[in-house]
Amino acid sequence: MSKSISIFDTTLRDGTQGEGVSLSADDKLKIAKKLDELGVQYIEGGIPGSNSKDIEFFKRVQQLGLSAKITAFGSTRRKDSKAEQDGNLKRILESGVQAATLVGKSWDFHVHTALQTTLDENLAMIYDSIAFLKQQGLEVIFDAEHFFDGYKNNADYAVSVLKKAKEAGADWLVMCDTNGGTLPHEIHGIVTSLTSLIPQAQFGIHTHNDCELAVANTLSAVEAGARQVQGTINGYGERCGNANLCSIIPNLELKLGYECIGEDRLKQLTNTARFVSEIANVNMPVNQPYVGNAAFAHKGGIHVSAILRDSRTYEHIVPELVGNKQRVLVSELAGQSNIVSKAQDMGLDFDSTSEHSRKVIEKIKDLEHQGYQFEAADASLELLLREAGGEMKELFTFESFKMLVEKTAGRAVVSEAFVKLNVAGNNVYTAAEGNGPVNALDNALRKALVQYFPAIKEMHLSDYKVRVLDEKDATAAKVRVLIESRNINQSWNTVGVSENVIEASWEALVDSMRYALLGQILQTSEPEAASPSQGLVNH
Amino acid sequence: MSKSISIFDTTLRDGTQGEGVSLSADDKLKIAKKLDELGVQYIEGGIPGSNSKDIEFFKRVQQLGLSAKITAFGSTRRKDSKAEQDGNLKRILESGVQAATLVGKSWDFHVHTALQTTLDENLAMIYDSIAFLKQQGLEVIFDAEHFFDGYKNNADYAVSVLKKAKEAGADWLVMCDTNGGTLPHEIHGIVTSLTSLIPQAQFGIHTHNDCELAVANTLSAVEAGARQVQGTINGYGERCGNANLCSIIPNLELKLGYECIGEDRLKQLTNTARFVSEIANVNMPVNQPYVGNAAFAHKGGIHVSAILRDSRTYEHIVPELVGNKQRVLVSELAGQSNIVSKAQDMGLDFDSTSEHSRKVIEKIKDLEHQGYQFEAADASLELLLREAGGEMKELFTFESFKMLVEKTAGRAVVSEAFVKLNVAGNNVYTAAEGNGPVNALDNALRKALVQYFPAIKEMHLSDYKVRVLDEKDATAAKVRVLIESRNINQSWNTVGVSENVIEASWEALVDSMRYALLGQILQTSEPEAASPSQGLVNH
Repeated sequence: MSKSISIFDTTLRDGTQGEGVSLSADDKLKIAKKLDELGVQYIEGGIPGSNSKDIEFFKRVQQLGLSAKITAFGSTRRKDSKAEQDGNLKRILESGVQAATLVGKSWDFHVHTALQTTLDENLAMIYDSIAFLKQQGLEVIFDAEHFFDGYKNNADYAVSVLKKAKEAGADWLVMCDTNGGTLPHEIHGIVTSLTSLIPQAQFGIHTHNDCELAVANTLSAVEAGARQVQGTINGYGERCGNANLCSIIPNLELKLGYECIGEDRLKQLTNTARFVSEIANVNMPVNQPYVGNAAFAHKGGIHVSAILRDSRTYEHIVPELVGNKQRVLVSELAGQSNIVSKAQDMGLDFDSTSEHSRKVIEKIKDLEHQGYQFEAADASLELLLREAGGEMKELFTFESFKMLVEKTAGRAVVSEAFVKLNVAGNNVYTAAEGNGPVNALDNALRKALVQYFPAIKEMHLSDYKVRVLDEKDATAAKVRVLIESRNINQSWNTVGVSENVIEASWEALVDSMRYALLGQILQTSEPEAASPSQGLVNH
Repeated sequence: MSKSISIFDTTLRDGTQGEGVSLSADDKLKIAKKLDELGVQYIEGGIPGSNSKDIEFFKRVQQLGLSAKITAFGSTRRKDSKAEQDGNLKRILESGVQAATLVGKSWDFHVHTALQTTLDENLAMIYDSIAFLKQQGLEVIFDAEHFFDGYKNNADYAVSVLKKAKEAGADWLVMCDTNGGTLPHEIHGIVTSLTSLIPQAQFGIHTHNDCELAVANTLSAVEAGARQVQGTINGYGERCGNANLCSIIPNLELKLGYECIGEDRLKQLTNTARFVSEIANVNMPVNQPYVGNAAFAHKGGIHVSAILRDSRTYEHIVPELVGNKQRVLVSELAGQSNIVSKAQDMGLDFDSTSEHSRKVIEKIKDLEHQGYQFEAADASLELLLREAGGEMKELFTFESFKMLVEKTAGRAVVSEAFVKLNVAGNNVYTAAEGNGPVNALDNALRKALVQYFPAIKEMHLSDYKVRVLDEKDATAAKVRVLIESRNINQSWNTVGVSENVIEASWEALVDSMRYALLGQILQTSEPEAASPSQGLVNH
């Protein structure tokens, strides 16, 4: 049997059913281009005519000249009507696609309860709709909704649905675990029996993650003979999401020897996952398999010293195969080997036996003792190491900030911040309001920096966390603030610690902006803005 | 074969290796209590002696009288030494646990590369360490690190490791997929062969999620004969996380007919998952299987009308089985039973069918929609319910607060708060400094209240947490503040939500003091201080 698998991406259709995922036509076009570069075979663009975004997408995607086939999604014709007169089917034709995904019922319970029609009429709806699109020259992918629940309830009927679709000319018969409740061994058994019951057909699999088994279920179906895999980037989708292509593709390519997009394009996987998460404006879990920021991160000291000897000791694949990389986290549990490898990652000359390096390590340990945590604040650590290496110029000289929050009964709360700095020899004094104190500080600081460093406009804060370090006396205790920032290409994390949450936030904010402007404040770089003054930032 | 599975929770040990997860001794004790209520059989508390938090945890957990067995984690003895003289093993004994988890190497490559010793010495290390702890009367769970990688590389050696552990008296032989790179069918094959090679042993499974297969791999091992499952709440753990018990337990109980914690306790699963995520201060993905906020949420119009006809159409289980609820965006139907039972707990007359109760439930739902979360803020919920029952008198009438933070180069940051209230008919205007803004507010509010309610002196804030609710635009987003307060007898939790962290803190602070003074502001109670004015607190 062939070891070649067709990847069918439905991020732009089923993925947008996920909570918090909403894509404009422009967003969809950007993602389609990226998916095409990744090498997926099918890109399901949406439901033609369902809304103006999808109409625009199907029109404009034709001009991109993609290699992937664009498919449009729709249901089988309405009951008791003709396929030629069905509005949904007409709109699929009008969308200009060469392939259509038609969804039909295969669970008798659903035919009765949801469609409220007869089993025979459902078969006719499937046959007529597929035959009609085939006559018009389209490739047809038939998605058998609730196939596994249907098979378990009434196997004969579920099988007759697939047979009818095949008879009408469907190119692919896709078995959907719509409710996500089926287990891997059940999928394996059912797909195996189907491949012998309908021997000439090409089968596909479409799973959902309600039991945290969507990836395993997909692999089971492939091992049993399915040759098309439907899923989404990062597993976006309704409820618990669709099958996550970012895990399925490397599992198939690297673990099971199937060919999906090829090992060369596999290196774009991490980048694609992060790009899509950025466009969809959904934060990616750090612990996402293969492509997450922590997927190859190592924390424990013993692990780290073993990893440095041979990375196979604690890594199941070489991270670069999927375009990710190893990260060594610095934490209280770890020894200095973490810091050394971190410095080496940054290209710094850092010999752990030298006097200088020992001092830096001691400083970091001292900061950790004070409550700093660099494990989740890579950027602050990098700034520290570069600073210690004498590489950094000052971003500004700090003079003062003031922050005022005022609330009067019956009126909205007001936050204002005032920032006094010296930037590149100029005194700058700015004031700004905000939705909250940190937002006000962020706004005032940006206002002070933007004329000297316009690149500051391209970054924004994307996450903000506060933690009380000593719980014995909460409001008088030290707090640690972690800030995540991002621009279009990357995200980075910074940390601040103080007894005062505003001061800790200020510190993390300043580090975040220093990191964003790192290219302009390294001693080695050419000044792109007004020349900053000498010395290190004191924070 | 028995259908009974032991659940071994390692949230407090392996879970804390996850990026961003950091737990104090207090946090660990709270989670241990919650896990015990959920009904897990083993709670791995940490590594005795590795840091002061773990030392404190093992000391204090003994006073909780939990039913679950507390276990301490450690490595086998160091090479070329004696078990009786090994510091780690000694510290396990000193921790006072009845069960120990000992990790040992089973991959020959690791014995050479990481341990840098001989295969025979590794066997001796395993034998000696287990035998020593067994002589001291402990139950011993042997975690065979990298078992599957080891088996694939050198099956004879991997098997001899388990045999040696058994011979030394280990009660459980746990096969670990430490790097998370093994596939379900491989696990099934290897575990099956082991159960026949070592027929008298009890086997366990410990997996990691690097291929997004940790849940499937665990199920595979159980189906092949493993009877202990190691994992963490919400799948916290190094890199991509450990096997997620919140998905494994319902899969085993509801889908495969095994008994883990029992169907009755299963109803606490969602609550437990959310509680742990709050304590760990890690956002729970909305789409988390079974326990996530979107796990049973329905968005699509067609889905919703089918769901309203029969929820089996798009739900694989009844959400209440795991303590979760259906969310239909058009009409919220479920979830009032927990509020009713809460009200009954407080001795309130709360009939869920009455018009009054329906209004209260709607108000709570509305607040939850705004970002309030009452799962970790019992005291705020109780205040709401009592308020709705007309039981509460006003603590004060709010007029205004102002909060100023000022930092000048070279000088310490200064925080001041000004509070204007009417307490018991008297205008009160106070000012106070603090170590931070919330401390300043706390001090100013106390100053205003203390002459009328001297009991306020007996309580203090003991924990303070801030969570950004909408991460898309971090400093301009809504935040939720959770405050824990305590006096000599008890602790209680309150919540505040606002776009402004200071306003949210104020709200949680006020609730905290209202709860502390509950005895004095209930309508039924005798006034102990100057008589407060009538009406409800407006906050």
